Amino acid sequence: MITIRDVAKQAGVSVATVSRVLNSHRSSSEKARLAVQSAVEKLGYYPNANAKALAMQHNDTIGVVVTDVADPFFAILVKAVDKVAEQHHKTILIGIGYHNEEKERKAIDTLLCKRCSCLVVHAKALSDIELQQYLTRVPGMVIINRVVPKFENRCVSLDNIKGTFYATETLIHLGHQHIGYIGSNHQITDAKERMDGYLTALKHYNIHLNQYVIANSSPDFEGGEKAMIDLLSYNSNLTAVVAYNDSMAAGAISVLNENNINVPTQFSIIGFDDMPIARYLIPKLTTIRYPIDLMATYAANLALSLVDDGVSPPNHMHFNPTLVKRFSTKSLV
Amino acid sequence: MITIRDVAKQAGVSVATVSRVLNSHRSSSEKARLAVQSAVEKLGYYPNANAKALAMQHNDTIGVVVTDVADPFFAILVKAVDKVAEQHHKTILIGIGYHNEEKERKAIDTLLCKRCSCLVVHAKALSDIELQQYLTRVPGMVIINRVVPKFENRCVSLDNIKGTFYATETLIHLGHQHIGYIGSNHQITDAKERMDGYLTALKHYNIHLNQYVIANSSPDFEGGEKAMIDLLSYNSNLTAVVAYNDSMAAGAISVLNENNINVPTQFSIIGFDDMPIARYLIPKLTTIRYPIDLMATYAANLALSLVDDGVSPPNHMHFNPTLVKRFSTKSLV
Repeated sequence: MITIRDVAKQAGVSVATVSRVLNSHRSSSEKARLAVQSAVEKLGYYPNANAKALAMQHNDTIGVVVTDVADPFFAILVKAVDKVAEQHHKTILIGIGYHNEEKERKAIDTLLCKRCSCLVVHAKALSDIELQQYLTRVPGMVIINRVVPKFENRCVSLDNIKGTFYATETLIHLGHQHIGYIGSNHQITDAKERMDGYLTALKHYNIHLNQYVIANSSPDFEGGEKAMIDLLSYNSNLTAVVAYNDSMAAGAISVLNENNINVPTQFSIIGFDDMPIARYLIPKLTTIRYPIDLMATYAANLALSLVDDGVSPPNHMHFNPTLVKRFSTKSLV
Repeated sequence: MITIRDVAKQAGVSVATVSRVLNSHRSSSEKARLAVQSAVEKLGYYPNANAKALAMQHNDTIGVVVTDVADPFFAILVKAVDKVAEQHHKTILIGIGYHNEEKERKAIDTLLCKRCSCLVVHAKALSDIELQQYLTRVPGMVIINRVVPKFENRCVSLDNIKGTFYATETLIHLGHQHIGYIGSNHQITDAKERMDGYLTALKHYNIHLNQYVIANSSPDFEGGEKAMIDLLSYNSNLTAVVAYNDSMAAGAISVLNENNINVPTQFSIIGFDDMPIARYLIPKLTTIRYPIDLMATYAANLALSLVDDGVSPPNHMHFNPTLVKRFSTKSLV
């Protein structure tokens, strides 16, 4: 790796002169400036950002911890943070937690070791207590898609319960009474909250709950296929389902199609998240929009403001889910 | 930010002692060790990775430059590099180039400034000459999905031409003679090569090329919709199309469905890439597999070996596309 000493030697000037030129000091001569620029060009020298970060005690990088970058949900999150970073002439550093306690901790610690003073963290496996310790120590850390007690104003979350309540209510208003639920078997709050929204809607509209109308599986395409097969096997006369997310809805539609059950004529389905895939399905999927792009943008700006301006965080930002009507639901009449 | 001086003060020892303890020197006393550990714990001190990187002149981070992290293709690429990084107890740093010359350059320069000595770079807008200069200066840089002359053995690529040749040939063997092509309007080599494979196959099988059987658009779902609408408008009696990628194929299927043209009974279609979406479509998409996971794994390992072992790179690794048969193609007979 080329050092400032190599540049000085090549340019025939002192290290101090190279430093002055690179930092645009007015005291350096035109001759020295040209010699240094030529040496930098020839050797391919890069000013040492790590040295600068060391001197400044924080660097120009926003850290992001996500669960899995191959999931479009997190890809959209990362892209939104990157957009904010670019606006502030910063770059991003990504750690991956895989819903695993040890990996989430390692991802956060690595970013802190790199002196990321701003962090946007999606962590589901770490305890509230451990996250509270991190939040106390790191003023520029913001939590996304989770509410950590005592730090609500540094958390950015979505009202999951309202989302599935709304999805279920939409089906009830279309005349459906036999509505199933395809849930996630991951032990995270989203899974519990979305199930709660569905159950609350049924109760609110006095619809009896049959135990064989709920099937949980992995929150992906294959899990949606499996859960839908289970629900069809139970033979519970369902005419509609609410799915935990769009991927599971896609798997369910695939199974319904293979069994010659037409969506939406014979069967209605509503997803959750409004990922790009929702628009690719046949029929295009009616779903609940999870505004992860807006939430990640908000979180990144909040993290930057907490560090750069030292401002107090505003009130807790609890985003609202909305219904995106497409073509996978139909009135029963 | 907590510094080593704060730790020394809290522990009631010298900075040198803190440094010795943190670097596991045997010469530090048990008492000093406990005092330092307690102070580190209490203050939430993180050993300064930037300082360590500065001392070592390279750090524990693999840099990755991709076009757009919200595209599943790049998400899979990033995830594969991250897997390799984890095996070597390293983390990854991601830069985004957006197929833009200036942004690709900035992404690479930022990673180099962070002293990433290993880089896996997906760059389409930068010239061969500029990439050659980077490759000369940075021994641990590997290029993915592009062949840079004189540095073929540090490039990892796919035989795009063979891929679309194979897709077109598959349709010809099924009896199709009127085969269209839905292409990308991005000015990158992939777009040219995939079109070439299609044209070469038609020529090889003596099929006359009608100029109204090719439609180019943006390489995404909306572009696929638009291109398919164009092809239907031309009224060229097509019975099949080869699509530039799976997203465009998905858009095309959506348009065919809206026009009551059944896939595969009345119309066959083959995609490219084999992204997760290919399995979600109805019918499930027959496609050409782009083994980006294998290629990214190979590239990351190559980058690490070039730096860590100083070995000579092996021969140019040109990966092979394969056909994944699902349900979107059918014999014409």
